[in-house]
Amino acid sequence: MKLFKREDKAEPTHEPFRGRIGIIGAGALGAFYGARLSRAGHDVHFLMRRDYEAVQADGLHIKSFEGDFHINPPVYASAEEIGRCDLVIIGLKSTDNAVLQSLLEYVADDKTLILTLQNGLGNEEAIASALGGESAASQILGGTAFLCSNRIGPGKIHHSDHGWIRMAEFQGEAQPRTHAVAALFKSAGIRCELADSLLHARWEKLVWNIPFNGLGVAARGADTETVLSSEPLSATARGLMEEVVAAAKADRVTLNPEIVKRMMNNTKTMGAYKTSMQVDYEAGRPLELEAIIGEPLRRAQKAAIPTPRMEMLYGILLRLNELSRPA
Amino acid sequence: MKLFKREDKAEPTHEPFRGRIGIIGAGALGAFYGARLSRAGHDVHFLMRRDYEAVQADGLHIKSFEGDFHINPPVYASAEEIGRCDLVIIGLKSTDNAVLQSLLEYVADDKTLILTLQNGLGNEEAIASALGGESAASQILGGTAFLCSNRIGPGKIHHSDHGWIRMAEFQGEAQPRTHAVAALFKSAGIRCELADSLLHARWEKLVWNIPFNGLGVAARGADTETVLSSEPLSATARGLMEEVVAAAKADRVTLNPEIVKRMMNNTKTMGAYKTSMQVDYEAGRPLELEAIIGEPLRRAQKAAIPTPRMEMLYGILLRLNELSRPA
Repeated sequence: MKLFKREDKAEPTHEPFRGRIGIIGAGALGAFYGARLSRAGHDVHFLMRRDYEAVQADGLHIKSFEGDFHINPPVYASAEEIGRCDLVIIGLKSTDNAVLQSLLEYVADDKTLILTLQNGLGNEEAIASALGGESAASQILGGTAFLCSNRIGPGKIHHSDHGWIRMAEFQGEAQPRTHAVAALFKSAGIRCELADSLLHARWEKLVWNIPFNGLGVAARGADTETVLSSEPLSATARGLMEEVVAAAKADRVTLNPEIVKRMMNNTKTMGAYKTSMQVDYEAGRPLELEAIIGEPLRRAQKAAIPTPRMEMLYGILLRLNELSRPA
Repeated sequence: MKLFKREDKAEPTHEPFRGRIGIIGAGALGAFYGARLSRAGHDVHFLMRRDYEAVQADGLHIKSFEGDFHINPPVYASAEEIGRCDLVIIGLKSTDNAVLQSLLEYVADDKTLILTLQNGLGNEEAIASALGGESAASQILGGTAFLCSNRIGPGKIHHSDHGWIRMAEFQGEAQPRTHAVAALFKSAGIRCELADSLLHARWEKLVWNIPFNGLGVAARGADTETVLSSEPLSATARGLMEEVVAAAKADRVTLNPEIVKRMMNNTKTMGAYKTSMQVDYEAGRPLELEAIIGEPLRRAQKAAIPTPRMEMLYGILLRLNELSRPA
């Protein structure tokens, strides 16, 4: 899915980040990136919940279109056992942000870098608040991951497509450390480019995520092909994209309106793709509703930017999310 | 539910319509009105499908807040057996309009009056087309029924609230026959007022029906209370109402924008009300989607009136409607 233009800038070569790396939230995303870093020789420590025993016994199996591999990394059942890290990569679902504080207190001090690869808006703020301290926000980097991966069994990840990352400091410009973290991923064969602005990158990803994650669930199990083949749903997806482009201005992010046409066209080439929100919904898991729709909507409404479709989508999904959870 | 203002005009007294009356589509609505007319001594003939045998054996039982009653009317399993009528009252779901022609050919000639009490837009046109003939449209009257009734068993109807009708000629002004049909209902204790314009009455009813029928299904089983208690759904209902008020202009119907506030307020007094579309959806029956949302949306779009919420609602409901039907 070539939804996002990649600019092939000639960047100066940086030394990869060195230090103890903790993967917090080693699901389909965290486990994949952690495994690639681990295979490349970095010092990676995995926090795992349901797959702890499987990985403890038999390691991580990555089935990948770029080549299958298997590693036996250090795996832990609690953040306390991992202990302090120099870099913590957050792969938790944003719906688990409430537990951030109870994890970060063991793995992060005020020198630790935190890179969140979570979806949507508000995660950096949640991490800063979980870290506490005045300068917490300055420890945070954020990235948008363009990755198709699924957990296909205990300790087994299927990496079916893509994998690149767009990354930036949460606050301010790129620093030597930012380049070092990007170089870390590159050293593991992961394309990683720096964005001028994390907010810009996050909003740009939302232009696609809001319509296709949202409608996929609201129109019950509608994959990208189903949305595009319905005249009113396809027009609604386009309308939602336009609303997100407008809403981004609430964060002083100016997106090129051409992005709508480009994303609609490129989505046509994706086939019948199921979004992560749909996968979560079908599995009865809570939806990443606040990060992906609620927070962008609230920012737009606060800035009085009209977002009728986002509001309706949010209302419907709030209800579906509520119904799908055990009371 | 005092959603619609009633104007108590002093009308001249008219003689009730006299003649053979056929009820086509004797469900919760058709059977109720037919039974009231029958009890009042009119010559009413019922076409019934699934309840034919029950009513044949034991008549129609009406449990009503205005008083229970029981009648043994002439009931038929086919339109052919009913034969020609002077007045045909259509209570079919609009989703059954495809069978109109095969029914009307037996019960209607070019002198028969047809009164449709169906929901939404496009039913009069479907009837005119089913009748055929150049002057077919001039035989048609339409009404909006404000009735809470449910079929609670074979031949058993529960009339829980309301019952009044707002009626008009499909084309042109009220005629003596229009007053006679209104007097017919009044003679059976049914409040029946004439509207200046059928289209106006239909669009006015849609202002309520589109948001609450539509969101009720899209937000899975959301009754009126559930919609109103959700901030984004309630705002969406209001937004949909505003869109319908604007969309009515496509039919040169000017609704007072005050209607939105009034309907939102009055809906608060209704308690947890389930709309007919929701009841249909939960019973796995096809939704009256085209008459209630599709046709109004198409008229708005043809007139280039922005209706983003209606479009989104239609797209989602088309999909749910499709999924709920056996392939």
